[in-house]
Amino acid sequence: MSTRFYRALRVLGIADWIPEETVRRLPLYLRAALELAGQGADRVSSQRLADHLGLTPWLIRKDFSYFGDLGTRGVGYDTEALVCRIKKILRLDVTRNAVLVGVGRLGSALLEYGGFRRYGLRIVAAYDRDRARVGKTLGGVRIKHVDQLATMESRGIDMGIIAVPEESAQEVVSTILEAGIQGILSFSPGHIVAPKKVKVITIDIAMDLARLPYYLSSRRK
Amino acid sequence: MSTRFYRALRVLGIADWIPEETVRRLPLYLRAALELAGQGADRVSSQRLADHLGLTPWLIRKDFSYFGDLGTRGVGYDTEALVCRIKKILRLDVTRNAVLVGVGRLGSALLEYGGFRRYGLRIVAAYDRDRARVGKTLGGVRIKHVDQLATMESRGIDMGIIAVPEESAQEVVSTILEAGIQGILSFSPGHIVAPKKVKVITIDIAMDLARLPYYLSSRRK
Repeated sequence: MSTRFYRALRVLGIADWIPEETVRRLPLYLRAALELAGQGADRVSSQRLADHLGLTPWLIRKDFSYFGDLGTRGVGYDTEALVCRIKKILRLDVTRNAVLVGVGRLGSALLEYGGFRRYGLRIVAAYDRDRARVGKTLGGVRIKHVDQLATMESRGIDMGIIAVPEESAQEVVSTILEAGIQGILSFSPGHIVAPKKVKVITIDIAMDLARLPYYLSSRRK
Repeated sequence: MSTRFYRALRVLGIADWIPEETVRRLPLYLRAALELAGQGADRVSSQRLADHLGLTPWLIRKDFSYFGDLGTRGVGYDTEALVCRIKKILRLDVTRNAVLVGVGRLGSALLEYGGFRRYGLRIVAAYDRDRARVGKTLGGVRIKHVDQLATMESRGIDMGIIAVPEESAQEVVSTILEAGIQGILSFSPGHIVAPKKVKVITIDIAMDLARLPYYLSSRRK
């Protein structure tokens, strides 16, 4: 009911609310559209997207319905237009810059990971408290000491990526929020306290692993 | 409608279907219950759990309704009973063992990460194709060469964690599926093809970062 209500508002241009679950899948659709475009597909059907992603065409059409008409039934979606539309909705139509705090094993992997670029995402600054790491360059970024974080030049930086030990995470988040950053991707498993206007996405790998046994065979005891 | 229908079936003991979104939050509730138990709380209210996790009490009560009555209104839940119940539902009431394939920066971080233990999860074997890494011990696990993966002793291993480059992921998954493993946690961004009975959870960090700009200020254009 409320979903239909909001969808109607959205189509009418009155609201732009999209359910969190749909937002979660939009980057998936973006990746699939980019990959299929790379394979030379000018048009893609929801069925082809579904096959590519291992989802159902029904779910994809439902998700797309939140942002109005994207294609004609039976003809499929224009691949380029789909890429542009999703990028615009996700606000990825401009390059988005991130600051990384914590350059341990995980942070290093993030700095050297090339996969962000296809979404127009860049890590442009990195901080660590270990003086042995400070001054080194990784993934084209020179690592600075975390003491300099409070005076960080945050203009043009949209997001913070937190890859520090759990006990330091809240302090680091508070510091970068003071610098004006409004979106946080945290790899620290603890709950981060932040003002309502700040979006915090937590990736807790242990918790993703912890829900896997639920799906193992003989679910019915 | 269908949600209510399945919930009724579940409460009646006829079905044990739980929506994916609820399963996704169960480890969160488990972590919160463990933490509050550690702080000496014998009972917890949905409000306290909500405050601890930054969620709404309404959502928590809705999720808990899928597994029948857990507490009396106004009295809260028995913390220990809650821990046991969630562990049982998630099938974490026994220790679950995982094999890790790919011991690069990310894989090393996983091997040395202590946070799995609180959920009863253990990485008990690790494989890599780089001979420089083979034979080393990390997080108490001796790294073996990936050529030995096909003859892995998979008894007692429930899950596979894949932290190899994208182009090798499918081959590695196929090999460990042949060894009888039924649950996969993949850090490879590409879609993994696997039989229906196998659950694949993909963690694509770039995609989590890609949905963050959507939530940045001035969402209304």
